[in-house]
Amino acid sequence: MSRLPSGQAILSRSRIIIVGAGFGGLAATQALKYADADVILIDRTNHHLFQPLLYQVATAALSSVDIATATRALLRRQANATVLMAEVVAIDPRGKRVTISSGQDIDYDFLIIATGAAYSYFGHEKWADFSYVLKTLDDATEIRSAILGAFERAEGSGDAEEIRSLLTFVVVGGGPTGVELAGNIAELARSSLTRDFRHINPASARIILCEGSSKVLGEFPDHLSAYAKSSLSSLGVEIRLGTRVTDIGPQGLRAGGQWIDTRSVFWAAGTAARPAAEWLKLEPAHGGAVSVDANCAVIGLRDVFAIGDVSSHTDASGRRLPGLAAVAKQQGVYIGKLLSAKLKGGATFPPFRYRDLGTLAVIGRYRAVARLPGLSLTGTAAWLIWSLVHLFLLVDFRSRLAVYVNWTWSWFTYGRGARLMLGMAAHDSSNPIDTGPPIEPASGGADRQ
Amino acid sequence: MSRLPSGQAILSRSRIIIVGAGFGGLAATQALKYADADVILIDRTNHHLFQPLLYQVATAALSSVDIATATRALLRRQANATVLMAEVVAIDPRGKRVTISSGQDIDYDFLIIATGAAYSYFGHEKWADFSYVLKTLDDATEIRSAILGAFERAEGSGDAEEIRSLLTFVVVGGGPTGVELAGNIAELARSSLTRDFRHINPASARIILCEGSSKVLGEFPDHLSAYAKSSLSSLGVEIRLGTRVTDIGPQGLRAGGQWIDTRSVFWAAGTAARPAAEWLKLEPAHGGAVSVDANCAVIGLRDVFAIGDVSSHTDASGRRLPGLAAVAKQQGVYIGKLLSAKLKGGATFPPFRYRDLGTLAVIGRYRAVARLPGLSLTGTAAWLIWSLVHLFLLVDFRSRLAVYVNWTWSWFTYGRGARLMLGMAAHDSSNPIDTGPPIEPASGGADRQ
Repeated sequence: MSRLPSGQAILSRSRIIIVGAGFGGLAATQALKYADADVILIDRTNHHLFQPLLYQVATAALSSVDIATATRALLRRQANATVLMAEVVAIDPRGKRVTISSGQDIDYDFLIIATGAAYSYFGHEKWADFSYVLKTLDDATEIRSAILGAFERAEGSGDAEEIRSLLTFVVVGGGPTGVELAGNIAELARSSLTRDFRHINPASARIILCEGSSKVLGEFPDHLSAYAKSSLSSLGVEIRLGTRVTDIGPQGLRAGGQWIDTRSVFWAAGTAARPAAEWLKLEPAHGGAVSVDANCAVIGLRDVFAIGDVSSHTDASGRRLPGLAAVAKQQGVYIGKLLSAKLKGGATFPPFRYRDLGTLAVIGRYRAVARLPGLSLTGTAAWLIWSLVHLFLLVDFRSRLAVYVNWTWSWFTYGRGARLMLGMAAHDSSNPIDTGPPIEPASGGADRQ
Repeated sequence: MSRLPSGQAILSRSRIIIVGAGFGGLAATQALKYADADVILIDRTNHHLFQPLLYQVATAALSSVDIATATRALLRRQANATVLMAEVVAIDPRGKRVTISSGQDIDYDFLIIATGAAYSYFGHEKWADFSYVLKTLDDATEIRSAILGAFERAEGSGDAEEIRSLLTFVVVGGGPTGVELAGNIAELARSSLTRDFRHINPASARIILCEGSSKVLGEFPDHLSAYAKSSLSSLGVEIRLGTRVTDIGPQGLRAGGQWIDTRSVFWAAGTAARPAAEWLKLEPAHGGAVSVDANCAVIGLRDVFAIGDVSSHTDASGRRLPGLAAVAKQQGVYIGKLLSAKLKGGATFPPFRYRDLGTLAVIGRYRAVARLPGLSLTGTAAWLIWSLVHLFLLVDFRSRLAVYVNWTWSWFTYGRGARLMLGMAAHDSSNPIDTGPPIEPASGGADRQ
């Protein structure tokens, strides 16, 4: 007997559990709108996040609400969908049951795993204590506080060496996130903050991008990578290619054999799928992912599907699908349609086919690269396509409007409207070497002093 | 020899240190724009906060950036002003020196203390562990997560008693903050959230306002208090007047001798001035404040001034000035002019006179009370005045525009755009009784699951 988490006995309708409210999980839920099933969408957070713009929150250009919306508000009108904010701790694919952290078991008829990927330190998990990653809104708020805090501490310091270390920002990883982060930190330092300090020159900040391979934006065609590299250089980013990081500590990192003093290391060098393979007791595929067949079904299990970054999906030509929002979204729609058909008695369904509409990466104002089907663009044209696409991809109208207002505003002023340091008490400044997570329990009552 | 925090020797110009970048400290800094002095504004945070709208962030109507701006961005064009993000730990009025938490001493010629007030539990400091206050942006984010989290946990719970406790919100204190908070939680529960849940009815939430005296909004005329009371009642707020709180614990509170099960207690019952009296080793006046003379000078000290909530200022008619943003702001402008004149050699200056332009408090959509000079208003008229006044008081254009967009949007949709729970992992739901500060160190890498 299936039981709802609330303990009510349910109808004999099928139940579909979806774990993860990212692009894949949300798309799957929405594609199941007219399915004859109860859909339960479980996520650790209460919001759907537009991850491609997360770096803009981290660099104070946008605020959290611009790129995130309460998941249940998005699904308000979908009567067959229930949103549950909870953490999944175990899955029993034999008993067809999901266990959440409160200890409750929830039975399913079909399970869709869409838990995404997290940053991985490739066995150097200790480095996590001395560097920042950018996956969640809390991560972005933390990075924003770290960057702004470094300038604040430098302004209050009289020690030239300390100032130099505070104003050195190192991004590890030259993929889209690393490139976007480095470009935006450079713009923040060289344009937005220039006139705000009296003792330091924010434009003197060093932004270093370390990439292990021989080019940035490795998945893009060579001439787009080359454009991205020269754009970053013109923004003042020092690019170190073929440079592997071998140590990260509280005072800096070793990259390509050379020590760099810094308090701000941003890790964007590689991801691993979230713990689905462990939950399912399966041998993990590439990057910890779960191998799926052409119908997105987890190989070796019945009625369990995996989509997005958590899945390792090889298309008909033998190519592994990339970890892109577009893939996750298309797979979500696909799996929703597949299950809707199955519930109506359909026995077979055509395999998933990824429709590649291209990839975009933005470096800064007017600077972007776009790989479109049969077309490559750089510069202002790519930037305009990027901004239009992202504006329209944002999930609800309100976010679009707010982002538009913010972008227009920063456009004319070079300003950054979201320059707030939250969750960070000023007494950190007594220990400027503190590079642990700066968010502390708010003890309440701490007013402006 | 005075030394700047950066260790550079300075000119022989006078130095004015202002502690606190709230309404008073910011106004004082700006009023010193043309003074022949170096002005150093010290604050624990990096932002100036528009506190009167903080309850809207706490109830998910506005986001943090709508009501806060980086202090140094506000003072960018004021060449004689330096902003220092630091915590003051000691003041030596004899040696004319301020010590910040890094251990650095900063000499001053004139000192302006504008550190405001914090909530006080009147000797029951332990209650702080089980209740929330609303003074800072971090407080507001924490309250927003607590309120939204209570609904989330109730949706996932099957226990009727637990649900009832989770959906009971108690506000302690019937002043403007308490009234605004209670009214907005009621509107959130009864309008914004109603269609978003499947297992609970958010409109069934109980919102209880406990006030020790015989009326809400005690500083307003009786008929305005009566209007506020009936407005709150019509929004579904249970008002308990003459009700003192005698205990607060993790499972609820005792008010007027009666136990109420709740996980959400909001403390808005009284404030105490921030630690200036201790710093100065003075006998604290009413509410821990520092007594000042008619020129806002701290009695018994030379060249130290106190403005806003941290000061106890009695006007010519013997009335103690209220703890309002308008008082702090006018005192800030006054002290800036006084010091500017003094630096030019002026010996005397007329005493500070508070120009009372009235007080406003808002209860909900269309519902507000306004006490203006010679005029009292309630309902829509008061609400319109309130919204116009607050729109124009917001410090910079961008905030105004964003607030306007957000307000217009919620006006038409009853929606709340800022429904994000930050700094709160879902595994809290395993322990729904956890009422400690829910903000936890972000450990990084926690993606959507």
